[in-house]
Parts: sequence; C-alpha cells; structure tokens
Amino acid sequence: MNKYWSNFVNTLSPYTPGEQPEDKGFIKLNTNENPYPPSPSVIEALNTVSKENLKLYPDPDARLLKEEIANYYDVEQSGVFVGNGSDEILAFSFLAFFKKSKPILFPDLTYSFYPVYCNLFGIDSILVPLTDDLSIELSDYYQENGGIIFANPNAPTGRCLSADVLEELMKENPETVVIIDEAYIDFGGESAIPLTRNYPNLLIIQTLSKSRSLAGLRVGFAIGNTELVGGLEKVKNSFNSYPLDSLAIVGAVEAIKDKDYFEKTRKDIIETRKWLCGSLENMSFKVIPSQANFLFTSHPSIPAIELYGSLKKMGILVRHFNTARIENYLRISVGTRQEVEALEKALKFLLAHGGV
Amino acid sequence: MNKYWSNFVNTLSPYTPGEQPEDKGFIKLNTNENPYPPSPSVIEALNTVSKENLKLYPDPDARLLKEEIANYYDVEQSGVFVGNGSDEILAFSFLAFFKKSKPILFPDLTYSFYPVYCNLFGIDSILVPLTDDLSIELSDYYQENGGIIFANPNAPTGRCLSADVLEELMKENPETVVIIDEAYIDFGGESAIPLTRNYPNLLIIQTLSKSRSLAGLRVGFAIGNTELVGGLEKVKNSFNSYPLDSLAIVGAVEAIKDKDYFEKTRKDIIETRKWLCGSLENMSFKVIPSQANFLFTSHPSIPAIELYGSLKKMGILVRHFNTARIENYLRISVGTRQEVEALEKALKFLLAHGGV
Repeated sequence: MNKYWSNFVNTLSPYTPGEQPEDKGFIKLNTNENPYPPSPSVIEALNTVSKENLKLYPDPDARLLKEEIANYYDVEQSGVFVGNGSDEILAFSFLAFFKKSKPILFPDLTYSFYPVYCNLFGIDSILVPLTDDLSIELSDYYQENGGIIFANPNAPTGRCLSADVLEELMKENPETVVIIDEAYIDFGGESAIPLTRNYPNLLIIQTLSKSRSLAGLRVGFAIGNTELVGGLEKVKNSFNSYPLDSLAIVGAVEAIKDKDYFEKTRKDIIETRKWLCGSLENMSFKVIPSQANFLFTSHPSIPAIELYGSLKKMGILVRHFNTARIENYLRISVGTRQEVEALEKALKFLLAHGGV
Repeated sequence: MNKYWSNFVNTLSPYTPGEQPEDKGFIKLNTNENPYPPSPSVIEALNTVSKENLKLYPDPDARLLKEEIANYYDVEQSGVFVGNGSDEILAFSFLAFFKKSKPILFPDLTYSFYPVYCNLFGIDSILVPLTDDLSIELSDYYQENGGIIFANPNAPTGRCLSADVLEELMKENPETVVIIDEAYIDFGGESAIPLTRNYPNLLIIQTLSKSRSLAGLRVGFAIGNTELVGGLEKVKNSFNSYPLDSLAIVGAVEAIKDKDYFEKTRKDIIETRKWLCGSLENMSFKVIPSQANFLFTSHPSIPAIELYGSLKKMGILVRHFNTARIENYLRISVGTRQEVEALEKALKFLLAHGGV
C-alpha cells in the first residue's frame, strides 16, 4: 500500500507461478515444463542466426511465425495472433473481449491466472463449480454471460473435453466470446481449432512452452476468426508494438516446422504419463484421467502437503495448491522416464516409512 | 468494429511504429536504432548459452539482470524493475500510477504512445503544449494533476533538460508520480536516476533498444523507490509472470556489463550527430539542438513530406510525422558516418534538383 499507487493496485492478488529454484539439482516436476530440450533445429537456428541484427527492432507483426502457424493448422494468416507467452495473449483477450456489462464464466478450479486478470482489468466473473469428480459440466455454462473461458485439458485436473462436446457449447452460446485455453492439448486431446471456421466467437489459445519445449522463449499464439484477431491486434498495438523479440520468432518458427520431433516427444510424454499413472495407482493413489503432461493425484492415507514437503526434501519438486477442494492433491508434471522412476522410488520409500 | 469486442476496443487508436521494411537494402534512419551491433560479449554469450535449457521457464524475477543494473547505477536491487521493452514498462506504469481521478499531464509533442496508453486504460490526460521553439517549459506543469510524464531527451525533438532543472519539478510536485522516460539519455543527457534517492514519487524508465544496440531483444528497465517498483511488480505479476525470456536476460546482462563498448559506441554516435548537424545546417536546414541519437530538422524551401518521399525512393528511410506543428520536420536517426554521408549526398542532390 503506497499513496502513489492507483487505488486498484492495493486490491491486486498477483498470480503465483510454481517455484523456479536457483538450485538446479532438483528433479523438477512442478511447472509442467517439457522434460525434453527443444528440437535440434531450434537450437541450430538460435546458434547460427545473426546476433548483429539484434540492433534492429523485430518485425512487429512476426509475419514469418504467423505464416508457419497458419500453414501448420491450415487456417488464414489473418486468423493467427502471437504474443509473449500465452499469458500475455490471455491478458489481451480479457481486455479485448471480456470487459462487458455481464460477468464472465469460468470454473472454480482452472488456471488460476483467470481471476487475476479479472481483478487487474475490473471484469466481473462467476465461478462455476466443477462437479464432484472435478469435471467441467458444460450445461452449467448455458446461462447469460459476458464471455466464457476454461482450459482444455483443464488445469490442474488434466481432464479433457472432446471437440464434439465443445461444439454443443458453441451452439448454445452464440452471443459472447468463448476462449478455450489449449496449453496442454498436444498431449492427447483434440484441438477445437477446426471449430473456429464456423464459430466467429471462438478463440483458441495455445503456447510453445509445453509441447514445443520452449517455456524459456515465451511464445504463445491464438487462432480465431479474423475479426476476433483484429480486436487482439488493436489491444496489442495499444500496449507494445514488439512483444516478440527477434530470437523468439526464429526459435518458434523452427519449433513449428519440425513436425517429426514434435510428434516423437509428445508421444514419449504420453507413454511416460501412462506408465506413471499405473505406477501411482499401484501405490493406491487416486489419479484423475489426464490428457495433459501432468497427473493430478491424491493418496488415501498421506496428506498431499506432507508428500509435497517430503519429496522436496528428497530433491523432487511437485506442485501443491493450497486451495479448497484440492488441498489433498498433488500436480505432478510428466518428466522423462528416468525422472518419474526416481519419483516412484521416493514415493515408495515415503509410503513404507510414513515420511522422511 | 465487431460485436464480440469490448466496447472500448472500438475507440482505440493504436500506436504506429516506424516502418520495418522487409527489403533490407534501405539505409534505415527512421526508428532510432543503434547503427552498431551489440557488444561482442553479448553476441558471444547468446551464441554459447545452452539452448537446451529453453525447455525451462526463465527466472520470473530476472534477478541476474536486476543485480547488474543495480550495480551499474548504484541503486538498490529492489528499486529496479525490468520488462519486455520500455513500452511494456510504460504500459504497466500508466496502470500502476496514473489511473487516478485527476488527469495526467504530458507534452502535446512527445512519445506518441502516451495518449495510446491513456486510451487503452481509460486515463484522462491534459496535453501541455511545447513552447514555440518546441521546448518543455516545466512551470507549465505546476498545476493539479494525476501524474506527469515526458521523455527526456524529448522525442521527436531531441531537446534535453538537466537534472537540476528536473529537481525543481520534483520539489513542486510531491503528491503524484513523475515518470521520466530516458530512452535517449545515454547520448549526451544527464540521467535523473540519482534523484530517485530523494524523491519517492520519481520513476525513471530506460531501454536497451537504443544505446545498448538491443532493439531486437526487447528489454527495458525502470529505477525508482522500492515502493514504486513494488507497485509495478504487482501489476506485472497480475499480467505475465515471465515477460523476459531466458535469452533476453542473458544478452541484457552482458550489454550492461560491457562498459567499454557502451562508452565507445555512444561517443561515436555523439560525434556523428555533431557532424550531421553541421552538414544539415550547411544545407540551410534548421536543426533543433539534440542530446538524442536523432536530429529533428526542417528545410526552409522543400516540404518535409517531399523530402521523406524522395529519400525513400533513393533507398533512405527517415521518419515523418503527420502531426500538427511538426508536419514540416523530419526525424533522422544518427547512423554510421558512412550512412549519414550517404544521406548528405542524397539531400544535396535533392536540393540541387528539387526532387527525384
């Protein structure tokens, strides 16, 4: 609280990202990063691109990247928006589409940045509770609203709705913008991007941080109707002409281009998730069915907060949320097979000894 | 205009950055980029840093960079804020400090992104006219306000106020935040950073895009009282946890570290500016005294818009603003000696032949 701040700053409750420890010795299964490095062609391009040209501003429209994304998803280039991570695109989208007289709708348990944006931009919201098994029940969203947003697969649960089911929502909700945050869609879900052809109020947001192994490069994108993207461009160009730096554009282009590496790494993660899910269930964990690169899980006898603390002492970071309804769950990112085997070993030890 | 947009989106008038032509053959003197490449140590660091680690999120606080900036300017690390270019920091600052009941004050002619932020965030403003010779008269700002901002040196004029003069403003204006945008301060001006020790309502914003030759890497920083910076951190953490990517942090750290290269290149630019100023005056141009890496100039007989168009045909880009009071000026970035000699040759031809 400071007399020089705008009043609303006092009321902000910023988002808390997962720990990014300076100690690089941890097995890091807490922020849903990809355990594999970026594609070798990304690394090659970043190593060889001229750094002398960093004296010049980047292309403010990042046309090369938009073109690559448009080709990959078979959409118009004018229907592609890019930003400094999907977080920036979410922020712009809340401003561009959700500053309405009616409250927006999102699940009580989903990406916890959504209420932070509402707070920042003065947007009213209604939290729609997940069902008892932590599912999104779409008919709960068939009500007046200023917009709808959720993650699919949802976070931190990992549950995923099919595109067919999502189309029902679009049919029921033609008047306001629906944003589907597909940060985790490449790990087994079905993208709703094809629906953007028929529904001018549907915006899909994705990121290169997870399935493209580029969390460190901060690149996200959105796909939707040209006019929706036009609204985002107006907000972006009223905020920062050049949100993507020249190296981020180069790296992102190569990441989208290298389809083989993308297919191989996401398949490996899906297989490791399957193995880890079986391993956890063998140890009596309850595991929510996940189409994401993480598992949301609880144990019948050891509280999640204790497991979190014990694992941290043993050099393994997982994510625990101090949030009603899910305080007894851990969110575990799917690492390499070696990393999740180390996790299994640690959990077996903890279950046998009741802690460290 | 689209029915899905928030109403205010229809009223936005986005900022128009200078042209970034795809044709790399132009002599580019239009966006105040540095004509010299970044320091060799920046290039070396960017070439050798592990790209494998881009799979991990960056440090959300960019501590290594804040530490380097704090050391360089001899301020507390908690008084340093970093962002995705100074534009992002300006946007956060308008939200954090200028969303007040009273209008903010800024010059009628200054960085043209300021009115865009007001528009975006619903902030009232009063434009304070520059004097007839395009100077800022500080006593014009001794009035009730919700905040004050201007660039020093001012853009597009290049005129610079001394820190002593700025201290008078701080004494007169203790109740609201004063932001001095020092994007161009390293080309001959005197930074007001030392004043931040005594004035808790003073925020200085700088960029690595100009004097550090890193426009392509998108890094800016702000220095001020710890509580002011705390307000910025709250807004930033409600918008994007990781605005600076891992490579931008690495490059920026090295750019701040290499003091010798910084001193040499800024000295070279100052010398070239002096040469270009003399050259323009020899051709009867009126040149406003500049402490920036650009000159603001008009010719008594040939309209600026014509010169702009003719130079573009001859492969030289300069900036022309279609703005009342300055429509007969050109803003010319100070390039290398070779580039400004080519400009001189082109102008001599145009003055002799009355156009191309």
